[in-house]
Amino acid sequence: MMQIPSATRKSGYGRGPQTPNAALTEVGPGTPGGEYLRRYWHPVALSSEAERAPRRVRVLGENLVIYRDGGGRVGLLHERCAHRGTSLYYGKTTDNGIRCCYHGWLFDAEGHCLEQPCEPGGGAHRDKVTQPWYPVQERYGLVFAYLGPIDCMPPLPRFDTFENPAPGGQIWPERDTAASCFLDSAVSIDVVPYNYFQYWENILDTYHVKILHNTFTDVAQFPGVLALDFRVEWELLSDGVLAHSYRDVDGRVLHRISQCTLPNIVAIGDLDGRAGNARRLNWIVPVDDVGWISFGISRGKQQWNDSDAVALTPDGKTWSQMSESERQRYPGDFEAQSSQGKITLHSEEHLGRSDKGVIMLRRLVLKQIAAMREGGAPVRLGDGDEALVRVRGGGFYDDAASPPSE
Amino acid sequence: MMQIPSATRKSGYGRGPQTPNAALTEVGPGTPGGEYLRRYWHPVALSSEAERAPRRVRVLGENLVIYRDGGGRVGLLHERCAHRGTSLYYGKTTDNGIRCCYHGWLFDAEGHCLEQPCEPGGGAHRDKVTQPWYPVQERYGLVFAYLGPIDCMPPLPRFDTFENPAPGGQIWPERDTAASCFLDSAVSIDVVPYNYFQYWENILDTYHVKILHNTFTDVAQFPGVLALDFRVEWELLSDGVLAHSYRDVDGRVLHRISQCTLPNIVAIGDLDGRAGNARRLNWIVPVDDVGWISFGISRGKQQWNDSDAVALTPDGKTWSQMSESERQRYPGDFEAQSSQGKITLHSEEHLGRSDKGVIMLRRLVLKQIAAMREGGAPVRLGDGDEALVRVRGGGFYDDAASPPSE
Amino acid sequence: MMQIPSATRKSGYGRGPQTPNAALTEVGPGTPGGEYLRRYWHPVALSSEAERAPRRVRVLGENLVIYRDGGGRVGLLHERCAHRGTSLYYGKTTDNGIRCCYHGWLFDAEGHCLEQPCEPGGGAHRDKVTQPWYPVQERYGLVFAYLGPIDCMPPLPRFDTFENPAPGGQIWPERDTAASCFLDSAVSIDVVPYNYFQYWENILDTYHVKILHNTFTDVAQFPGVLALDFRVEWELLSDGVLAHSYRDVDGRVLHRISQCTLPNIVAIGDLDGRAGNARRLNWIVPVDDVGWISFGISRGKQQWNDSDAVALTPDGKTWSQMSESERQRYPGDFEAQSSQGKITLHSEEHLGRSDKGVIMLRRLVLKQIAAMREGGAPVRLGDGDEALVRVRGGGFYDDAASPPSE
Repeated sequence: MMQIPSATRKSGYGRGPQTPNAALTEVGPGTPGGEYLRRYWHPVALSSEAERAPRRVRVLGENLVIYRDGGGRVGLLHERCAHRGTSLYYGKTTDNGIRCCYHGWLFDAEGHCLEQPCEPGGGAHRDKVTQPWYPVQERYGLVFAYLGPIDCMPPLPRFDTFENPAPGGQIWPERDTAASCFLDSAVSIDVVPYNYFQYWENILDTYHVKILHNTFTDVAQFPGVLALDFRVEWELLSDGVLAHSYRDVDGRVLHRISQCTLPNIVAIGDLDGRAGNARRLNWIVPVDDVGWISFGISRGKQQWNDSDAVALTPDGKTWSQMSESERQRYPGDFEAQSSQGKITLHSEEHLGRSDKGVIMLRRLVLKQIAAMREGGAPVRLGDGDEALVRVRGGGFYDDAASPPSE
Repeated sequence: MMQIPSATRKSGYGRGPQTPNAALTEVGPGTPGGEYLRRYWHPVALSSEAERAPRRVRVLGENLVIYRDGGGRVGLLHERCAHRGTSLYYGKTTDNGIRCCYHGWLFDAEGHCLEQPCEPGGGAHRDKVTQPWYPVQERYGLVFAYLGPIDCMPPLPRFDTFENPAPGGQIWPERDTAASCFLDSAVSIDVVPYNYFQYWENILDTYHVKILHNTFTDVAQFPGVLALDFRVEWELLSDGVLAHSYRDVDGRVLHRISQCTLPNIVAIGDLDGRAGNARRLNWIVPVDDVGWISFGISRGKQQWNDSDAVALTPDGKTWSQMSESERQRYPGDFEAQSSQGKITLHSEEHLGRSDKGVIMLRRLVLKQIAAMREGGAPVRLGDGDEALVRVRGGGFYDDAASPPSE
Repeated sequence: MMQIPSATRKSGYGRGPQTPNAALTEVGPGTPGGEYLRRYWHPVALSSEAERAPRRVRVLGENLVIYRDGGGRVGLLHERCAHRGTSLYYGKTTDNGIRCCYHGWLFDAEGHCLEQPCEPGGGAHRDKVTQPWYPVQERYGLVFAYLGPIDCMPPLPRFDTFENPAPGGQIWPERDTAASCFLDSAVSIDVVPYNYFQYWENILDTYHVKILHNTFTDVAQFPGVLALDFRVEWELLSDGVLAHSYRDVDGRVLHRISQCTLPNIVAIGDLDGRAGNARRLNWIVPVDDVGWISFGISRGKQQWNDSDAVALTPDGKTWSQMSESERQRYPGDFEAQSSQGKITLHSEEHLGRSDKGVIMLRRLVLKQIAAMREGGAPVRLGDGDEALVRVRGGGFYDDAASPPSE
């Protein structure tokens, strides 16, 4: 069919440079965004993954190895041996550290060089050598690491939802990257190949649930309460943003809270609207500028993840079972976020009122970075010596709240 | 065998930087070459490929999607949604446009934002948002697009050879990249991985036919009239260059004309020397600086392509059937042009009189780019309101012409 | 297990830029390191590999082709034809040169353009065209090339250990990259993917044999004499460095000499401690900044290589038979050196007394490069018109030397 285009309406010609907001996307050492991220603890492995055989860890653009020595102590060291750079991935753990394969230099978890077997006297000057190391702490079955300046190291936070598990309940840690991104734990992927912020900010994007996850195709990904109409308000906290959504469920109001806590923490209520505090927390950990992984903790009588096998097609296939053509036709978060680019181009966006939560979160992060530029510090998580963080995420049946009237 | 090299003749040492002529090779937005290319219409798909399911199109370094809406209108839009950058490849066509999967924004073919479902009132400010778009027109079974400034948009040319098909004749569009480059339509390739100019200028390189295609190996790729000796003259037009070659065929003179029309159009006579105007046109469309594809149109009673299964080896194999060792031994255009590099290095060339057609074509293109630098415009194709282009390519038995006497 | 990190010891935070010493690692044309390397002859192929069918050669960052013409003369030319850049890999050798496939230009081994078939008179100006070429000489079954300035071309060295083979002995050239690096000639690899200097300097690293190769895992890679304790001294020569190691073998002293001769030559004694001059020489040839290959020559009654099938695991597997997990657990030279990086980061090293040989070698190379910066030349190999190099490597039972008493 022939169409004659108008010769007046400005087209895509002449767009000029298209750029990300680097402060939001950069995670590497020495970058404003990377320095901000480094002021917080990040999970880098499950406790069960820290074992005798060294394991590679890439986080915030740095290549590290993690191991557990014979005394049970976990070490997280820069991968390249301080001697001549051979990787400690090929090293051997000992009772008190890790030994490099090349010349046998032995290091402990604070990077002390304990032995230099080929040097006179086992290394008369070994005290002058430090293997770059990072402090770690284990909690909730995860190993957390702090990659920032030691003199600014905050306490490792506690999260109230995990501090007093119900009788018979346990804490279940998992590496849940695939489930987080593909709604299918069977997807075989180590690192999701785009910038972490594109996933994390999406948690406060309440409206996309209605479209992408429920009405865009003929398959509702989250049927049930999440398919109902809602009213949403966002609330700014000192250390994060909450999305309060309200839905009429059989005459009662379901008040769900989705929580993003700096720098990359997520707490949301059950997807089926079950009442109660969030029983799952997630950390969206930047591997580098173009990749992220996810660690989750849930609490309960058994391991649980309500995102790990969601049907996306009319014939009930999950992501790992779908063809490219089906993924084009039945997109989910992975398609929507990865196609923004490995690093999205903020300069090209046109944000609306429905993006208010995303805007608030970005501004809160930029505020931390600006404070640091002025010589200050980003907000600390939690209260008191225990750095106890109040988890607000969850689903609450609140008869007093206004029903969704918009 | 021992050989003692002379110590006097300058070797390959000390060559200095080796560079392309960027004005000829660059195709991206904002580059001199790219801005020149953008003043012309380029085919981006077959009409049959513009359908409900969006299709990715990469052209002149830009990532777009093409679709046909329920009303039959073809849209060609920048891939990244104007909202927050999600790809419209995952979008859904409607009666009048395409809807993004993430938040449901709806756009039409001129980038008007028709709906913002998550915004109050369906988007009170949606008129302020334009999805970057390009005008398209369909002709001869192809979808043509114009990526330049709207106020300079020329008419979509017509080509006289296709305007009045003979009785019973039809126009046959095809995506003929593999046949163009490998002389074998069975080669499975989307984009030929080198700069388009290296293929296009070769059309005027009459002499290589004699060597590469006919005498270099013991298999003549184009036996028949193309194997005969020839005399060649090149003719400069305002919008292209013609190569006039003359061969003695059983006492008559076969006058073949190979035509390159700006910016990337090809018209040549049948390879077997059949008389008549070119019954095939090709467009060598730059995908980006390091890739191109080809669209062809032929006319006749049936689909026809005389390059789609040429035997290159003594045992009659076509390119897709050959081993790496056979391709080394029986090279064709792909080998000769791709090995110049993804982008050839013009600084290293030594051109001769046999390159005159290539030289004329390069100068003509550089002249357009220079004119634009001075605030002018490149030459427009075709005459009159219909922009009718006279196709000169073809094979003509011309008793009056001089037989090849060189 | 909970560990509370001290908040005082400086961690890996704030490390600053990490860089290689570019003078040691760069091999390309025009770089200080590359210019130094270019003053020497390098093997580029076995004589048996220089045959009618052209073969690609990449050396010191340059892309070349090698061929042997009908008259037996070996040519080594830049890959891209001087006409318009088509690769001579697709060329055809003739009695006296190589002909390009595109337009048939014919070149000889000194880059003379002999024919331009498509030009008037076969090319009236062909004498003005030079195909970039490099002089070659064959010796010991290898083809050596010189990529430096012709007026500085040294004689091709001779090596005394190969000049007078014992009766019944022969010279055996081989491309032994896999054996050199993986201790397993069955590994299928063309180029080892890291900078050549990381392999070459390791030859003088006597101490790593004790750790990496013999005690680090529960499998001694070089059992026998190399597993014995040793004393080592390094000796600086004008053109290289020697590592003298002394071991007590059943009451006699085994004095092994490992020799690195500029710019990339290796001569060591048999790994089983057999007495005699080195019967193998190796050249560690840089392909580019991030890759190397190895050519070896051995002498004897038959082809011999004592590195070509070393068991690395308790169940006797060689490298090509091992899984990734086994390679992590039983590392060898490839793991130790490749994990330093494609190009190691000298800025991060902490060298000790056991690195003395490596330090001496690096300083010797840097001294050559500094001399060239001042307008001088690097040291020439060998003595006299025949440039005879005295090979010092080997194993010698020396009753007069001090037994290892350290």
